[in-house]
Amino acid sequence: MKIAYAQMKVLAGRPGLNTKKILKFIDEARAGGADVVIFPELAISGQMLGDTGLAIPFARDCEACSEEIRAASKNITVIFGSIMERLSKRFKIIEAAANKKWIDDPVAIDFSRFHEKSRIVPTRGVSTPFKLTRRHKNYRGAYIFDARENFVERGLDFCIRFSAEPFGINKKISDDKINCPMIKVGAIGIQNTGKTIYTFDGCSAVYNSRGEIVQLTEPFEESLNFIELEEIDKMPPLKLPEVSEAEKIYRAVNYGVKEFLSQIGMSKVVIGVSGGIDSAVAAALYVQVLGTENVYLVNMPSKFNSLTTKNLSEQLAKNLGCKYFVVPIQESVDWTVKQLEERGIEVSSFVKENVQARDRSSRILAAIAASVGGVFTCNANKAESTVGYATLYGDEAGFLSALADLWKYQVYDLARYMNGEIYKREVIPQGIIDIVPSAELSTAQNVDEGKGDPLKYPYHDYLFRAFVEYNLSPESILRDYKNGELEKEIGCEAGIVEKYFPTAQEFIDDLERWWKAFTGMGVAKRIQSPPILAVTQMPFGARAESQNGVHFTKKYFELKNKLLAR
Amino acid sequence: MKIAYAQMKVLAGRPGLNTKKILKFIDEARAGGADVVIFPELAISGQMLGDTGLAIPFARDCEACSEEIRAASKNITVIFGSIMERLSKRFKIIEAAANKKWIDDPVAIDFSRFHEKSRIVPTRGVSTPFKLTRRHKNYRGAYIFDARENFVERGLDFCIRFSAEPFGINKKISDDKINCPMIKVGAIGIQNTGKTIYTFDGCSAVYNSRGEIVQLTEPFEESLNFIELEEIDKMPPLKLPEVSEAEKIYRAVNYGVKEFLSQIGMSKVVIGVSGGIDSAVAAALYVQVLGTENVYLVNMPSKFNSLTTKNLSEQLAKNLGCKYFVVPIQESVDWTVKQLEERGIEVSSFVKENVQARDRSSRILAAIAASVGGVFTCNANKAESTVGYATLYGDEAGFLSALADLWKYQVYDLARYMNGEIYKREVIPQGIIDIVPSAELSTAQNVDEGKGDPLKYPYHDYLFRAFVEYNLSPESILRDYKNGELEKEIGCEAGIVEKYFPTAQEFIDDLERWWKAFTGMGVAKRIQSPPILAVTQMPFGARAESQNGVHFTKKYFELKNKLLAR
Repeated sequence: MKIAYAQMKVLAGRPGLNTKKILKFIDEARAGGADVVIFPELAISGQMLGDTGLAIPFARDCEACSEEIRAASKNITVIFGSIMERLSKRFKIIEAAANKKWIDDPVAIDFSRFHEKSRIVPTRGVSTPFKLTRRHKNYRGAYIFDARENFVERGLDFCIRFSAEPFGINKKISDDKINCPMIKVGAIGIQNTGKTIYTFDGCSAVYNSRGEIVQLTEPFEESLNFIELEEIDKMPPLKLPEVSEAEKIYRAVNYGVKEFLSQIGMSKVVIGVSGGIDSAVAAALYVQVLGTENVYLVNMPSKFNSLTTKNLSEQLAKNLGCKYFVVPIQESVDWTVKQLEERGIEVSSFVKENVQARDRSSRILAAIAASVGGVFTCNANKAESTVGYATLYGDEAGFLSALADLWKYQVYDLARYMNGEIYKREVIPQGIIDIVPSAELSTAQNVDEGKGDPLKYPYHDYLFRAFVEYNLSPESILRDYKNGELEKEIGCEAGIVEKYFPTAQEFIDDLERWWKAFTGMGVAKRIQSPPILAVTQMPFGARAESQNGVHFTKKYFELKNKLLAR
Repeated sequence: MKIAYAQMKVLAGRPGLNTKKILKFIDEARAGGADVVIFPELAISGQMLGDTGLAIPFARDCEACSEEIRAASKNITVIFGSIMERLSKRFKIIEAAANKKWIDDPVAIDFSRFHEKSRIVPTRGVSTPFKLTRRHKNYRGAYIFDARENFVERGLDFCIRFSAEPFGINKKISDDKINCPMIKVGAIGIQNTGKTIYTFDGCSAVYNSRGEIVQLTEPFEESLNFIELEEIDKMPPLKLPEVSEAEKIYRAVNYGVKEFLSQIGMSKVVIGVSGGIDSAVAAALYVQVLGTENVYLVNMPSKFNSLTTKNLSEQLAKNLGCKYFVVPIQESVDWTVKQLEERGIEVSSFVKENVQARDRSSRILAAIAASVGGVFTCNANKAESTVGYATLYGDEAGFLSALADLWKYQVYDLARYMNGEIYKREVIPQGIIDIVPSAELSTAQNVDEGKGDPLKYPYHDYLFRAFVEYNLSPESILRDYKNGELEKEIGCEAGIVEKYFPTAQEFIDDLERWWKAFTGMGVAKRIQSPPILAVTQMPFGARAESQNGVHFTKKYFELKNKLLAR
């Protein structure tokens, strides 16, 4: 039996367009001599549908599409999934059609968690076996939704696994052994839950009965693939490609940005470039996606911006060949302060810092973007996002935060990767990679004096990752610190904690400062932050967060008192 | 048996503070001669905890609190709930302690849906009965989680219902009959899922065996209440108070704003007042919450603002007695346009509209708020929020959208209610109530010529409510229109559809325009909008929304073609 499997781009909420694509692949599969063609889970409807996707007319629309597919199944068995009205809102199904007839009852799987964050959670478990008859031979197959569960039933000829997990840096390709050949089919494209944009890399593959991969698709590329079922167990296992983390990130971020821009129908971006690493990486990335002519770089100095960073910005723009504007903000900031002070309102130097940030984004970048018919970017990284180290309506604004699921060290890795492997020249000036990270909003952040942000990234990247991705609380962190296991636990360089915080008091002050920021203003800012491009399984937006203020447990205080009493 | 029930304010994520309150109520209940005291569901932990509330140390902290309560239960039975580690993350429990001992195993109820939108969904069903022995008498009781299910078991002496639903305008007080006396206990306070702030009105009550209410607490007020179990069936049913919708809304919004400000530690607000209804209602509301001295009103005219609205703003400020600033924005807008045009970037009149809106919020209001140590408000209503009729970082910005769960007609009702019942004078000038709603961002919106917003509120309020609260799609709406049932279906005034849209073409153009706005730019803007104060069961933020672009079903197109062919 020849099996075709389609790693197709699925558009959530667009059943008509998906069905057109499915019909094209059915024709190609038939032309290629396939007996069966398999599509990704929910290929008609998509997964992340929101509440509008739960309206009855939408489900009926999907059902009408499945009838079109059935009618097109002449001489080929088509296995595909969709939501359907007749099974109510609480089910998803895998349909199988051949010779224009349904060959089996739809497999209905409870998806009561459908609604959770408007995303269908991949189902666990295994379907009841079904029978396929091709060329006078019977085959027993089953759908499998979680390969980690051992496949107990014996005597199956093959099974089909639907890979519905989005891309994540740490997502594993391999599956456990399940005792029969398995075809894993995944979609590509992007789908979103509003705030969080997930990329889907496909990850379709064929496994032999020993659980070894014998065929693997290119990630993020649409492809129709063929395999002879009887050959699978005779094929040698593939040597899986080794891909560096930076390369994985680059692929996913590049793909996600490209697809998101295409989905919202935008082809021009405006980027505020400060001479720092985040905006430089964003610029180099968007140029790859849209070309130099569609990326506008804007440097917006106030009196606090150094000649050093102004020159670095200009150098970056030259290297990339983009349109480059310098739009000073000092006059506007002074005017704002004057308007307030004339009315008896005193403006502190801290307030002036945020006035600068908002002047740049909400006054200049937004106006330029609208004028050129484009959008402007938010360049915040995940460390800044964790503790709200950004100004709302200022550097926290934009149409998309492409880097907001990357820790600072990953942003640097991406810079080096793009210089080394993509551009193969120093488009991001080394000076930008070497300079101390600084918002340059006051004299206290003078880069020429080596002053910058209050974040010590080689430690805080890892501390914040523990907060966000491991859900560790200060109590756990303080216990690890007390036991000398913190660096190992959170994954940062050994010796760094002692270096940054010679005393327990300093360590605790720092921990409390950032925990307060994470659970306090950080949450408030994230509520109003732009959509985030996800590259991990725990991006902001997917995390459930409430504005509940700061809490330390009793055990935390006990530990703290013991440490400080030493 | 004398039962006390505490309608207490629960702070989500603050077990220590909640426990202190619980201990105080236990003392008061004992002093009042109660045999039993009942607390709201999850009174220790709160409901809307987010992911940090699922960390093990937090659950252990709650567990330690429950031990304190047990130790305080001398001579009284205490019934309360919390999350606890030993029952894993997937359970919530009702604990009962008396004479410092657990008198029963905790009742564990699956709450696998805990995680959904970081909110514990009220559980359905009934617990297994438990036994209470007081004064040598045995009582059989049960916990009930959904009174709509008939209580089949007979022979119970009483049951306890935990009312965990937040306030909603249409929430019913009454419950079905359950064949034994019932004490319903609810919390007050606010809890949030990040974007959505819910108010809890308590709604505690005592029901007799015939399902009639015999005791009812004041909504939104903390109270410890007593009842003799043996008296319940002898008490006459209460006549329930009749409360108008405007009064309900006022109470909830006033309470929600007050509690939210207190939770974030803010006591000063800055409000941009345009001379329109939304900002006027916001001003009158915040003055009630914070007092005149803590509310700063700012009028920010450009050349498009009429003398009419400038005078109305000033009149409003005078009536309320607030600090009032006029900060013109024309110079700044001109300067922005000049900076762009000098660099060869053309600025269209549409772009200039949004430049004004952002200049007001992100430049002026944010700077004033930070300078006076306060926050500035977002005054968007639900109709504007539905279709994104607001500018990001402009009138869509602010610390809280207090009116964003109110349709425009409800904003007007609130204005009349506050003038009539709260202030008992015309603080909101009648001119503001009578004037055509207008953003005054261009000459096309000249209020003195009767021109204003493109929204026809007497129809669009109801159309949008059908989109948002009933999840109706254009297919359903077009079918109702075709069948002449639309006005009845969506609840607007009869005859209004024909008046606004004499032809099917006009009706369809309008429907498609706003459906596109709702599912397109509207979603993108809501992702970055401020937190919303909920007064319905379907506020934005609680709706699952994806940025999937615009979809019309095949059946929609069939209906449309039929209608246009007529």
